[in-house]
Parts: sequence; structure tokens; C-alpha cells
Amino acid sequence: MTRFRLTIEYDGRPFMGWQKQPHGPSVQQHIEEAIQSITGVTSVVQCAGRTDSGVHALAMVAHSDVESGIGAFRLREALNARLRPLPIAILGLEEAPGFHARFDCVGRRYRYHIINRRADLTWQKGLAWRVTSPLDVDAMQAAAQILVGTHDFSTFRSVRCQALSPVRSLDRLAVVRDGEDVFIHAEARSFLHHQVRSMTGCLMFIGAGKWTAQDLEKALLARDRDALGFNAPPDGLWFMEARY
Amino acid sequence: MTRFRLTIEYDGRPFMGWQKQPHGPSVQQHIEEAIQSITGVTSVVQCAGRTDSGVHALAMVAHSDVESGIGAFRLREALNARLRPLPIAILGLEEAPGFHARFDCVGRRYRYHIINRRADLTWQKGLAWRVTSPLDVDAMQAAAQILVGTHDFSTFRSVRCQALSPVRSLDRLAVVRDGEDVFIHAEARSFLHHQVRSMTGCLMFIGAGKWTAQDLEKALLARDRDALGFNAPPDGLWFMEARY
Repeated sequence: MTRFRLTIEYDGRPFMGWQKQPHGPSVQQHIEEAIQSITGVTSVVQCAGRTDSGVHALAMVAHSDVESGIGAFRLREALNARLRPLPIAILGLEEAPGFHARFDCVGRRYRYHIINRRADLTWQKGLAWRVTSPLDVDAMQAAAQILVGTHDFSTFRSVRCQALSPVRSLDRLAVVRDGEDVFIHAEARSFLHHQVRSMTGCLMFIGAGKWTAQDLEKALLARDRDALGFNAPPDGLWFMEARY
Repeated sequence: MTRFRLTIEYDGRPFMGWQKQPHGPSVQQHIEEAIQSITGVTSVVQCAGRTDSGVHALAMVAHSDVESGIGAFRLREALNARLRPLPIAILGLEEAPGFHARFDCVGRRYRYHIINRRADLTWQKGLAWRVTSPLDVDAMQAAAQILVGTHDFSTFRSVRCQALSPVRSLDRLAVVRDGEDVFIHAEARSFLHHQVRSMTGCLMFIGAGKWTAQDLEKALLARDRDALGFNAPPDGLWFMEARY
């Protein structure tokens, strides 16, 4: 058995998310099946951030113990050949004794992509969230700083979240406009389930003038999911980086 | 009748190209049908650059004479509603008396997107061309300058090209790398059919070390389609801008 570290890109649209599900296709299941078809042995693939249905990854990191005599390069080529034509690509694969993608991870970075315009999306459909109200990005960026730091993020947490504590330390939350594209960059050691989407939904409310920064602060202090303004759809969420 | 100028974004993957075809769906046909369903009157839509099957546009410009009592804003909204869920979006629409999208256009800009990596594409499948050989972008950029200027581009022209002359003035051909993304920016008053794709294919040969800059020069001087190195696929080609 050799432990390998994998770097994975995927388009989340056709999948029920990262994690294996009884009721639909998942990224994890497809990669595990590809490994099994090469080695004949079942391997579990564990990742740094179990993304939801419809969420994408540019560089998810995972590990797996693989019963394989072939080297890392050939294993990667064989995996990509078996994953074709699914929109999952193994960008990198190397031997990594003792490496644990989830427990060793010290920082995760997500990017949420809003397209701020009236017209429907074309090639970016499902890859970004279209918001038609003109967004005041300066107001969003200023209000986002309320959420940076260590807080009880119960308001921004899915009712299905399984984390033991609702307290998280948010290292960075930056809102940047580039033409009609608005990007929200979020960095933390770890996130609660739906945290980035919930923060994004509330920042959208602020950008659209439905909420003030004070409303956001009240929502945070309420520590109550019912105080949430809006949970943004998965479309615009991208897992960007896992740091070790 | 009011003449309108339209700015259009589309994902070329599901279409046989811009121009109406007897054997498949086209961008032009869908927009003309949307106009007819609103006004009850047939309108022809003419564009600045008739893109091929599978080629995309971020900002195609077109014009049409529309029998419409409603204003530009409501007409745009109605068109986008009727085009849904096709990946065609009218980004802009305004009254433009006397404007001709094709004959008034003084500059066209295309971008060809190569992704230079071994792994298959995921969310960018059909939106970029994957090239697995490592590309020497400095060599591509240097050789591209051979093509800039006024030349007989017969080598870089589809046998189906209907232009009267094979002579074109290429104002800019720049090759830029950003990580695994390689962009080829091409600007000219007008292009021949397949010109950008043919130039891109030959530049790829140079980047991969299959051709030297001298080979490119010989191909240009041959003025013969048979001297072409390679015609790049439509996937990576984007119509970016029409200048007036």
C-alpha cells in the first residue's frame, strides 16, 4: 500500500457533491471506482473539504492508500483515462507517506463568484451566481470585516452541519469587483457547512441595499440560523486551495 | 422599423455557428426567431463576425431592423426571456440609426485560449483547447510577429473562405502565458475564414518544438493551404470585440 496525495479539479454541476451518496453520483465515488478498476482493490479517498452538490474545485486535495505497483505518473494517467469523460481531472498525484488531506490541512480557501448583471448567464451557467441588482462592492467589503476573526458562526451554519463547535476563526473575507464579476475570497483553517454560501448571501443583501452592516452584525450576534438573510446557491462556490 | 445595435454573448458549443444553416441550430436563427415571436415580423440580424460551429463570443456586435413599439430596455428583456434557456444573452441593445454591424466595423479582436497541461479539461471542456506538449511561449510570441502586417494569408485560409482577396492586415498577434493558460490575442480590421485557428495551430507547432520560426515564414510565403501546419479546433476561439 502506498499513500498518495492527489490534487483534483472538478466541475460540480453533475455531482451530488464530493461525498459518496446512496442517491446519486459523487466525485469521491467516481475516483474510488477508477482506483478500484486499476488495482482491483478498494481504496477510500479522503479530501480536505467535502464540497456540496453543485460546488466546484480548482485544486481539491485528497489522499488515498493505493495497492499499486505502477508509479505516480502512470497511476495519474490511468486515473484520468478512466475518469474520462466525467469532468473530474487529477492534476497532480505523488507519493506522500503519512499525509492526511483532512487532518493535516491548516488552511482552506474558497472563492465565490457573482456575476452582477441583468442578462442570463451563457457559458458560465452553473459556474457563477447571477445577481441582477447593482451591487455596492465597497459596502460589501466594509461589512465583510465584521465577520473576520473568531466568532460563533451559528447563524451561518447549515442545520445539517456536523461540526462539534460553531466557533470558527475567519482569517480573510475580501470582496473584489472586476467589471461585472464580483469575487468573494474566504480563508480559514476550517469552515462550517454552508458557511461561505451563507456569508455570501448576506453580503449580497448588503450590496443590494437590503441590509446594512448593522443588520449583518445583529445576524452574527443572534447565533441563530433563523437570523440568516440568504444562503447563496452552490453555483458560484469554488474550492481553491488547501494549505499544509 | 427601428434599427437596433445588439451586443451578444454566447457559448458556441450547441450551435452550428453564427449563421443560419439548413442542417442545425445557429445563433442567428435563434435570435431572429425570438424577435419574430415578439413582433410578429421577420427581422434579419447581421453580425460583425460570423463565427464557426463551436466558437464562442463574449461581445459579438450585430444590428437588426425591428418592428417594435416597445423601448430598447423592454425589447432586450423580452429577447432574453425568449432565448432562455439557450446559452445566448443579449448584453446590450440600443437604437442605432444607420448603424451597420458588418460594414461599419473597423476592427475585430479574437482571443484563442489554450490550456497547456496533461490532465483533461473539466468545466472548460469545449471552451478551450488542451495542448499536452509543454509550450515555449517566448518562441511562439517571437514567431507570431512574422505574421503581423499586411500579407497574403492564403495558407491560413479555409478552402471554403468566400473573401475576394486573401490579403489581410494583421495589427496584433500576441501570445501570453498565465500559469497553464496560454492566450493568443489577434486583432485586425477583418480576418479570413479560419485565419485565427490556422495561425494558432502553427504557433502551437512552434511552441511544441515541431516547427521553427523559419517554418512559419515558409508556410506564409507558400500562399498555399497545403503548407499549413495545423488548424486549431474551434473550442478555444472567442470573439471578444468589434470596434467602430
